[in-house]
Amino acid sequence: MPASVRFTKGHGTRNDFVLLDDREGTFALTAQLAAKLADRRSGIGGDGVIRVAPTRLATDPDVRAQADRAEWFMDYRNADGSIAEMCGNGVRVFAAYLRREGLAPESGFGVATRSGVKQITFDGETVVVDMGAWRLTDPEHAADGMDSLVHLEGHEPFSALRLDLGNPHTVAAVPPTVQLDALNLTEAPDVKPPAPQGTNVEFVQPLARGHVRMRVHERGVGETESCGTGVCAAAIATHLWAGGDDQDGTWLVDVPGGRLRVRLLPDNHVELAGPAVLVADGTITLEG
Amino acid sequence: MPASVRFTKGHGTRNDFVLLDDREGTFALTAQLAAKLADRRSGIGGDGVIRVAPTRLATDPDVRAQADRAEWFMDYRNADGSIAEMCGNGVRVFAAYLRREGLAPESGFGVATRSGVKQITFDGETVVVDMGAWRLTDPEHAADGMDSLVHLEGHEPFSALRLDLGNPHTVAAVPPTVQLDALNLTEAPDVKPPAPQGTNVEFVQPLARGHVRMRVHERGVGETESCGTGVCAAAIATHLWAGGDDQDGTWLVDVPGGRLRVRLLPDNHVELAGPAVLVADGTITLEG
Repeated sequence: MPASVRFTKGHGTRNDFVLLDDREGTFALTAQLAAKLADRRSGIGGDGVIRVAPTRLATDPDVRAQADRAEWFMDYRNADGSIAEMCGNGVRVFAAYLRREGLAPESGFGVATRSGVKQITFDGETVVVDMGAWRLTDPEHAADGMDSLVHLEGHEPFSALRLDLGNPHTVAAVPPTVQLDALNLTEAPDVKPPAPQGTNVEFVQPLARGHVRMRVHERGVGETESCGTGVCAAAIATHLWAGGDDQDGTWLVDVPGGRLRVRLLPDNHVELAGPAVLVADGTITLEG
Repeated sequence: MPASVRFTKGHGTRNDFVLLDDREGTFALTAQLAAKLADRRSGIGGDGVIRVAPTRLATDPDVRAQADRAEWFMDYRNADGSIAEMCGNGVRVFAAYLRREGLAPESGFGVATRSGVKQITFDGETVVVDMGAWRLTDPEHAADGMDSLVHLEGHEPFSALRLDLGNPHTVAAVPPTVQLDALNLTEAPDVKPPAPQGTNVEFVQPLARGHVRMRVHERGVGETESCGTGVCAAAIATHLWAGGDDQDGTWLVDVPGGRLRVRLLPDNHVELAGPAVLVADGTITLEG
């Protein structure tokens, strides 16, 4: 283990990350090291750790195969050290870092991830990501835009729609008679039919035409201030509930950590746009 | 506000701090800036922010008056930006920083704080601090080492002793029939007689001769992994309960964040010794 490591800390709508610049592709980001860096008290602190690495040197052949379309690989680990395929807020921070370092063209580029190449463009300081294709989890039962129920103690069950964005989502429609801020999301909400692999659960309430508010309970994590794929799922579900044609398919989604913009693209692709802030740069000293 | 600021992140028994090196004494650490730096997602993150400043340039005359005994002033703010007098874990990190930077002699030195000069020595990597004098909060009623009760739901009231170490403490004796780890400290414990200014509450259980375990609910904060003055209070109370003469007045105190050593000194002074880790150094970019 190296004695000291350069890092950059960044966040997107308060979903925060420790970035390691491994542009030579020589650094082993182990689970143990990721957990150490992500520790908020004895390390730098973050929801995840991201290594910036050359795609052509990736050990995973499915990643290496992306090298002709994406020079850089987002090697992502959760704060507990486990591997994650993708992170919609993390990929913006990753892209902002490549831009600042002059490692990628301003006009846009592909980023290699464990769930395939993600296309990046910039709109001023806003980072725009094609998150790929979404699908209904259970198209047979989702004809009217609802296919499930979300139970929270003290409330009537919320009608919900299940969506797959590479990871599972259940988007619950919160009626105007219920205060979104008052929902107790300390426990994982109960979903019917049950989700065998678990599910992220989004609680969505309209604010205005093309504008919703959302809170999210992330699978295995708890309530978070922002979740990139969850924001996309919320916009897609709301779009479907609205008949899919009442406006141009652009939605603002307010989460506790800030505001994101979602656009529905052809071929069921979905685009996520939002801020990415590079907060600090430094060197961490690793003991032992 | 400056565009970028150099910082060092450090922790003592997982009580963590952002240090700002202001050895020229030109930097204004406002409440707003401290809160920004201490934010764990959009800043560096810490329980507090500490400015390293020349004592002779302090604006507070009570601090400036310490300049002949302490070259450096620990200008401490809590994570919410409010001013704090002293921090037993923070002062060790402060001292370790001065040592690393060659700003203070290895043989020991005084540190100026808002509650007076604290004397520092080193024992290898361990930082040793004379925390000053302690006293019984209510000596008239503490003849048998107990003067109060701490109530936690689901438990018989715990007998407790109130101590003043510059801040108020209530040390509760947890009997061996109660599992210390199982206590629910999510709410502030109810103390009788009530503490008008609030109180830190320590739950202490003996492990062996001269060795106790402790959990702490910090006033206005909640449960924390470590509290320097709380550790001292736990050792003092246990010492008094043991008759004050059963061993040499040195106590090991295990907290969730690590292990500290407390020594009872003449004139009711108390000494706290423990680790201080300088984790990372870097530059933070401040917007707006």
